[in-house]
Amino acid sequence: VSGREHPSPTEGSKGAPDASVTPGAQSFPLDERAIKGLREAGRQWPQASGHREALQDALPVDPALEFTPHERHRSARFIHVTSARPRKDEDLEATPAGEEGESKADHVAYRLRRAVIGPPLRSTAVAAERMGKALALPVLSPDALSSVAYGPEAMMSILVLAGAAELRLSLILGAVIVLLMLAVGMGYRQVIKAYPHGGGSYIVASDTLGPVWGLIAGAGLTVDYIVTVAVSVASGVAAVTSAIPSLTSATVPIGLAMIVLLVAGNLRGAREAGAMFAAPTYMFIVAIFLVVIAGLLKSAGHSFHAVAPVPHAATEGLGVLLIMRAFSSGATAMTGIEVISNAVPVFQPPAAENARRTLSIMIALLVSMFIGVVLVAHFDGASPGGGQTVLSQIAHRSVGGGVLYGYVQLATTLVLLIAANSAFNGFPRLLYFMARDRFAPQAFLHMGDRLAFTSGIVVLAIPAALLYAAFGGRTDPLIPLFAVGVFVAFTLAQSAMVVHWVRNRGPGWRQGLAINLLGAVLSALVAVIAAITKFTSGAWVVVIVIPALVFVCRRIRRHYQMASDALSPRPVSPQDELQGICRPPTAHDIKRHAHARAGGEAGHASHLVIVPIATLDLAALRSLSYAASLSLPMLALHVSPSDEEAERFERYWREWGDHLPLEVISSPYRATLAPILNYIEALHQEHPEVTITVVVPELVVARAWHRLLHNRIAVRLHRALSHNEGIIVTSVPFQLPG
Amino acid sequence: VSGREHPSPTEGSKGAPDASVTPGAQSFPLDERAIKGLREAGRQWPQASGHREALQDALPVDPALEFTPHERHRSARFIHVTSARPRKDEDLEATPAGEEGESKADHVAYRLRRAVIGPPLRSTAVAAERMGKALALPVLSPDALSSVAYGPEAMMSILVLAGAAELRLSLILGAVIVLLMLAVGMGYRQVIKAYPHGGGSYIVASDTLGPVWGLIAGAGLTVDYIVTVAVSVASGVAAVTSAIPSLTSATVPIGLAMIVLLVAGNLRGAREAGAMFAAPTYMFIVAIFLVVIAGLLKSAGHSFHAVAPVPHAATEGLGVLLIMRAFSSGATAMTGIEVISNAVPVFQPPAAENARRTLSIMIALLVSMFIGVVLVAHFDGASPGGGQTVLSQIAHRSVGGGVLYGYVQLATTLVLLIAANSAFNGFPRLLYFMARDRFAPQAFLHMGDRLAFTSGIVVLAIPAALLYAAFGGRTDPLIPLFAVGVFVAFTLAQSAMVVHWVRNRGPGWRQGLAINLLGAVLSALVAVIAAITKFTSGAWVVVIVIPALVFVCRRIRRHYQMASDALSPRPVSPQDELQGICRPPTAHDIKRHAHARAGGEAGHASHLVIVPIATLDLAALRSLSYAASLSLPMLALHVSPSDEEAERFERYWREWGDHLPLEVISSPYRATLAPILNYIEALHQEHPEVTITVVVPELVVARAWHRLLHNRIAVRLHRALSHNEGIIVTSVPFQLPG
Repeated sequence: VSGREHPSPTEGSKGAPDASVTPGAQSFPLDERAIKGLREAGRQWPQASGHREALQDALPVDPALEFTPHERHRSARFIHVTSARPRKDEDLEATPAGEEGESKADHVAYRLRRAVIGPPLRSTAVAAERMGKALALPVLSPDALSSVAYGPEAMMSILVLAGAAELRLSLILGAVIVLLMLAVGMGYRQVIKAYPHGGGSYIVASDTLGPVWGLIAGAGLTVDYIVTVAVSVASGVAAVTSAIPSLTSATVPIGLAMIVLLVAGNLRGAREAGAMFAAPTYMFIVAIFLVVIAGLLKSAGHSFHAVAPVPHAATEGLGVLLIMRAFSSGATAMTGIEVISNAVPVFQPPAAENARRTLSIMIALLVSMFIGVVLVAHFDGASPGGGQTVLSQIAHRSVGGGVLYGYVQLATTLVLLIAANSAFNGFPRLLYFMARDRFAPQAFLHMGDRLAFTSGIVVLAIPAALLYAAFGGRTDPLIPLFAVGVFVAFTLAQSAMVVHWVRNRGPGWRQGLAINLLGAVLSALVAVIAAITKFTSGAWVVVIVIPALVFVCRRIRRHYQMASDALSPRPVSPQDELQGICRPPTAHDIKRHAHARAGGEAGHASHLVIVPIATLDLAALRSLSYAASLSLPMLALHVSPSDEEAERFERYWREWGDHLPLEVISSPYRATLAPILNYIEALHQEHPEVTITVVVPELVVARAWHRLLHNRIAVRLHRALSHNEGIIVTSVPFQLPG
Repeated sequence: VSGREHPSPTEGSKGAPDASVTPGAQSFPLDERAIKGLREAGRQWPQASGHREALQDALPVDPALEFTPHERHRSARFIHVTSARPRKDEDLEATPAGEEGESKADHVAYRLRRAVIGPPLRSTAVAAERMGKALALPVLSPDALSSVAYGPEAMMSILVLAGAAELRLSLILGAVIVLLMLAVGMGYRQVIKAYPHGGGSYIVASDTLGPVWGLIAGAGLTVDYIVTVAVSVASGVAAVTSAIPSLTSATVPIGLAMIVLLVAGNLRGAREAGAMFAAPTYMFIVAIFLVVIAGLLKSAGHSFHAVAPVPHAATEGLGVLLIMRAFSSGATAMTGIEVISNAVPVFQPPAAENARRTLSIMIALLVSMFIGVVLVAHFDGASPGGGQTVLSQIAHRSVGGGVLYGYVQLATTLVLLIAANSAFNGFPRLLYFMARDRFAPQAFLHMGDRLAFTSGIVVLAIPAALLYAAFGGRTDPLIPLFAVGVFVAFTLAQSAMVVHWVRNRGPGWRQGLAINLLGAVLSALVAVIAAITKFTSGAWVVVIVIPALVFVCRRIRRHYQMASDALSPRPVSPQDELQGICRPPTAHDIKRHAHARAGGEAGHASHLVIVPIATLDLAALRSLSYAASLSLPMLALHVSPSDEEAERFERYWREWGDHLPLEVISSPYRATLAPILNYIEALHQEHPEVTITVVVPELVVARAWHRLLHNRIAVRLHRALSHNEGIIVTSVPFQLPG
């Protein structure tokens, strides 16, 4: 049983889960039981009236940093703002400059970082980072649209194995794929309708079918996102190197440089990354329509008589297996359809409405471009192979070899490259949702100072770059890794919608049910076909990786669950009592406090104990108890990424009893470590005669890999503060179960 | 200027430096200035009479661990012993069992370790680990004697390049080398005479010529020791694989296994490693004499008419350069002559006398074996090449192909392998001396629980294994790395002796001067010849490595000097006063102590602050001040590897003023971390209601590589104690200058 309330997929069926991202998601709210525990733990503290106020008065420093002499100097790192929170009306706010180090090298690094990724954005700018339809379409659709450049060709290159004459089957298979596109696309329109706050395959499957199915969908998408980046970069680079053959030997470095560029672009944040990539998508749409319309007009001149393709000897007989292989290869043209339903909250309000419209436009574009390419290729008698892509062949016939041809090739190259960007949009969001459900490390909940999911972007780029480099930048061997994951995700999302309609039966549920059932059956069929026909050529990797990822996610969840249970506030246990360090101070300790205060006022160099606290959990309470039992002037410190979080923390603090002085620093740029360091160092510089002891709760994990799941702020604080001789760091260990 | 007195080479000329190794060498004594600083710092503490005794009475635990209920249980980790030290008559002593962990896996690992390297040895057993002449000869001579197996051949394989007829020059060159052996050997006899407490090239050159020359000699020997291990193992394995050709593909793994065996043998300690290797050396001496005598008798049958060697076409003309190359190759037969003078203290008393006699015996053996092999090879017309070693050729002719031949080959193989062992004897001692002079990391001063220099043994094995593996286990390409380093060391040692005689003019100084001057000139000649003639084939590496090592050693020394200056006790400075943490407690604090004590007696769960201290330096004083200023019951803790060290520490403690309760644990097996952990955990288990705060001085280094130069006990204690929830670790940082 969970010790805290959090949007677990097992609890999700109570209502539609929230698919928006919020900067404060790293600190989980406490559930009722934990709040009760907090209240009871607080009641055991001695209730001397006015004690907290006395403690506040005894502080040898001014916690609000309102010393005048150095204000101008320190104001670079903190400013005073008027707060709307009930507790008080003035507040310390960390400035972005606080993240800049003190040395010359730090200064240069900070400036460089700002130059590359732009100025920091406040948490409240999340809403402003939303996109209109005209921007959302080119940002979210390149993954789907660009597959027109390789989907038909992948299909035809299988068909041609049975002889050039069988290429005519591409019309029939193309029609089936278009049907599939419409079914799946309409299915995702239903998803947006049912989950108006957003919800990709992971959220929808978790919510309706249960967490394991959600994880399977999530794992499938994870594989797909990584392969998408590798394949898109590989085909983009291939287009460049076929234009400039002298660059061929530099295939891998060029691709890696492009991945770095994508990372940098995405670290700037979704909106700017979109703006960088909007133009090429529109260029590509125009290019394909240009080729298709010119091609059809030419064919109309020949009364739509198809040119016979270049003869090609059959190497395989035309059997069911070959047709199925061709079909599943062609179905790679469908990757990326789910991106929009995943990303509803990035749309400007009304988000769901805008997302549905954008999805419809995208499906319409995808279907017409796909039909057009398949048709024109048929009429032109285009045939895969011969050192030219099918798209290049029909472009040549439609628009000749001049400027227009160059434009088509350039647009294709660019759109393939930025198709990878869809993955950089989608994957960090997927990891965010999985981390919110505690199936992934909490680091993926953190939004960087540009509101981008730094960790998720990096975690996508590294395996994609490795995959790309491992295959030497070649596209072909990566294709079989492609289809299985994405169609597993499609199947689960559509199946979840079927269950959803059966359960909820809202208006128009029969129609929705029919659409999603068709989508589910067709998607499942493609997934099975792809897994079977491509098993030996690479799909087996995916078949192993998906269960492995599900296993790892469940282990992560189990650890967080144990940690949460262990940390959930509860009245002090006899065990804690025995260990003496969780025991609240006694009336006697309070007298000692008074004594210490008297000593402090007598002019001696005095002590200050600072307890930085992220969450008011058992580890924090233990640190507070220890610090209080030292009978020295003390101050608790909390850094909050948003006003809502600050308010919530102060509410918990009051529930506990408000026994100790507390200073809340708001950090609108979401840094945690830097404000704590700057605050402590500011106090130290102002009062070097005060010995500052920083008491930090330290989670001690039972296994090394568990360290990846916690932010290890104790270790980082220790390292950063050890360069300051007047500041002493004390770790209060809290052992997590194995 | 140094803040502490330590046997610096720059100060050494005041008297012969001590070349014996002592287990307590890791804690340096304080110099007069530091003791004065300590005394002044102590005077600033409040002089309330009876305060320390009151503090001792206020302890919530019994520092001597004399609680009865669990004594049997804990007695596994500590025992009470009667101490002869002035402070008190009973003492806690750490047992070897204290190093064993608590888990099943730890238990197995500990048993395995004991099975491999033997039971732990007490520090007082150092004297017992000494060798008689009959054991010292085979332990220290294989490096020198085994070179008879490859030295003559290396010389002849150069001569034969000028045609087989020129092999007769080997008699002349051999005579020159014998002269060189006698000169250098007698020179080292003088070294032992002048440095009766031991002193290899490093100590002698440092002491007389200055530290840089000592470092050059040390660096030369370092290269030589590493190459010796690689070459000896390579030629030993080659002998095995030429006997059993099917093992050839496993050359590298076999050699690495042999290096592991050598490491294990040496970790058991010098005496046992020697016993393991004594028999093969004697076998080899017998084998060579057998071959030589039988060969000479056969030649006598032919009236000493030399058989003409197999004709060999000349590929180079006979020039001065070729003769010099042949000479410097033959001179590799001299490697290892210095080992005995380096290791005087491992001899049983009278050590110098025994060492000189052993050296004389070794030189006599070496010279006669070398002459014998060269002569017999000449008479037999042996010629290098043809898939057989020269030694194998003459053995065949002398003793036929039967059992005796097999014996000769086996003995040669074994002695080559154990020649590597001389390096494992010599190199860790060299590093110990360099570390004592602060030119190498202090870790090399630590003797493991078998009194072996664990770090030195490992640091020799790793580069030797890498070198061996990098050259695929082949001997030839390693030979050019060989001669330069060792002859540089010879030259410096002999030159130092020349300076020594000129300065001191003791009895027989003229004769000594003549011998050493001859040795110096000849050695220098060989070093220059080797460097020039082998420069392009590998000697350039040595020419680069030696200055690089000297540079690194000087940087290390500079860091330690800075650290020592920074840490040297001195009266509290205004800066420390400002930072508040080095300020001694005030009379007011003492009153608070009394108050806290009253609280503790009132039955509340109470605190205990433990301050582990290695050296009474400024970092330690700062930790003590901080701990005392908390006004909680406290106890300082010192772990001492030997009684002398314990006595010295307690003397410093009294100089400082004996202001606080102190517990000294003697650790006769030289572990530091384990006794501290066991002591704290024993107190915690006995009094779980007491919150134990461990205040550890933490040296904060300015550069990452400086971490290698300190033992980082704060970090290790923190890591080990964090698994204990009732124990809190506080680090008091002490910043070392960059």
